[in-house]
Amino acid sequence: MLIDKELALVEAMLKEAVKSDVALLTQMGEYIFRSGGKRLRPQVVLLSYLAAGGEDATQAVPLAAAVELLHTASLVHDDINDRSDQRRGQETVNARWGTDLAILTGDFIFVKMLNLVNTFELKVRQQLTDCCAAIIEGETLQAMNRGNTAMSEDLYLEVVGKKTASLFSACAKMGAIFAAGTEQEAAALGTYGSNLGVAFQIRDDTLDLTGKTDDLGKPVTADLDQGKMSLATLFVLNSPAKARFLSAKNKTEAIKVLGEAGALEYAMHKAEEYVKRAKAVLRIFPESEVKAALCEQADFAVARNW
Amino acid sequence: MLIDKELALVEAMLKEAVKSDVALLTQMGEYIFRSGGKRLRPQVVLLSYLAAGGEDATQAVPLAAAVELLHTASLVHDDINDRSDQRRGQETVNARWGTDLAILTGDFIFVKMLNLVNTFELKVRQQLTDCCAAIIEGETLQAMNRGNTAMSEDLYLEVVGKKTASLFSACAKMGAIFAAGTEQEAAALGTYGSNLGVAFQIRDDTLDLTGKTDDLGKPVTADLDQGKMSLATLFVLNSPAKARFLSAKNKTEAIKVLGEAGALEYAMHKAEEYVKRAKAVLRIFPESEVKAALCEQADFAVARNW
Repeated sequence: MLIDKELALVEAMLKEAVKSDVALLTQMGEYIFRSGGKRLRPQVVLLSYLAAGGEDATQAVPLAAAVELLHTASLVHDDINDRSDQRRGQETVNARWGTDLAILTGDFIFVKMLNLVNTFELKVRQQLTDCCAAIIEGETLQAMNRGNTAMSEDLYLEVVGKKTASLFSACAKMGAIFAAGTEQEAAALGTYGSNLGVAFQIRDDTLDLTGKTDDLGKPVTADLDQGKMSLATLFVLNSPAKARFLSAKNKTEAIKVLGEAGALEYAMHKAEEYVKRAKAVLRIFPESEVKAALCEQADFAVARNW
Repeated sequence: MLIDKELALVEAMLKEAVKSDVALLTQMGEYIFRSGGKRLRPQVVLLSYLAAGGEDATQAVPLAAAVELLHTASLVHDDINDRSDQRRGQETVNARWGTDLAILTGDFIFVKMLNLVNTFELKVRQQLTDCCAAIIEGETLQAMNRGNTAMSEDLYLEVVGKKTASLFSACAKMGAIFAAGTEQEAAALGTYGSNLGVAFQIRDDTLDLTGKTDDLGKPVTADLDQGKMSLATLFVLNSPAKARFLSAKNKTEAIKVLGEAGALEYAMHKAEEYVKRAKAVLRIFPESEVKAALCEQADFAVARNW
């Protein structure tokens, strides 16, 4: 791949970044990064850097590592709040070391991100802090709307825009700024990232509904009561299938209702619209291997099964 | 007081800093800052700025607000980990809004601190991020040593150095850097802050033992099992009074043992040594109202009853 060398450098930098005098912090940090991940955000940084005319993508490696550190810090805290015990095929930090140490680990990884970005220009750092505030605002709105079956699609999209799309957008924009691209390029890439982010999150939520086949083991409404809304669940809750959905006794039955009501299809269709918009905005760039890779990223956000 | 005007500006800036599009975040932020606090760290910033020759202390107000935001963010996360439900005479964020929102509130206040410091020079930002890493390392060491009755005094002092003294030291040093003071002045003030911080924490731990008179309502060892060690408890655990202390049935009895074994006296004597060192290092500055105020700060760290 176009940026394989740089992605390998990002991995090395992630492992280096989490070193601490306190052995346990190093251990927890290494544990997290060893489990891998899609590294989509670093890829968006690196490809955007190249798209905006950057000549040496290794220059953008610290930025690419920083956004993955930021994303990871946010995941560690999310997993506490979502009571998640599995991520990337292994126990979450909170499941393995408890809430206390998970809070500290998230804080630690975030601060290590700051170490990396201290020397970046002001414009980039401001993008990052604005985006951090947006992520927290999105997570807060989401926490406030746990189990809110009356949540509007607009509010759902606001949550997604803040908690997910803001970082993808910042990744693309900061990549362009690092490459000394034009304002027009930075803006287009920012819009690309934002649309990609929304598509990614819609797909993520859908995978969360259909990605596993185990029975829920509890009524669907109990899950909804403490759970996050998705485009598909909001659709069905506003459809004639609402009662059937709410009275479903297990996941299989609930998903069947979502399928029959056209909710999953609706969500995927929406996600594809965002992918289209993400790709359309790239029209200002000439055809190239980099542009093709950016389009592939957008397609992958929705086509992926993990 | 010398810096009353600037401290009022800090208060206004704190209230302004926590504003968010998400009303609940604003509400939680305002709730925290409304309850007041000693604002010792902003005072150390402002007085150090003046001691190092700064002419207009309002210049250091954003820095003073930033360190209070940082300190507060860390308190919000600490209160979760310590299962604290009261702070500054009101419910903690975790007690009032739950762990999930408390994690997000801590994150949010921290990011708002970053917003304030983005335009500061690199040297100051590096001091801040180094200090953040130290605080988290100290908190992690502390979490790892909950209930460790075999904890050494050296390890206790390492925890205190990282979790408390590092920020006081950074406050003083950054104040000096903001004032374009000499390296010698910044170093002296850094050492002042560090010693003040250790004294402050020893006193804090002692107040935690003796500041309230209610019975514990559980065996002292149960508290120790999940609790933090202090200089006084470590002293008694290494004294012939250990068995009596561990078998004390309530707080009154435990404190009586600490008193009779000389543990409280030992801790306070140690704290006073750090205060002496903090003041001694100020010898490079000529006598002045500012220097007297810095000495008063050091004295207050140990003399205070709250």
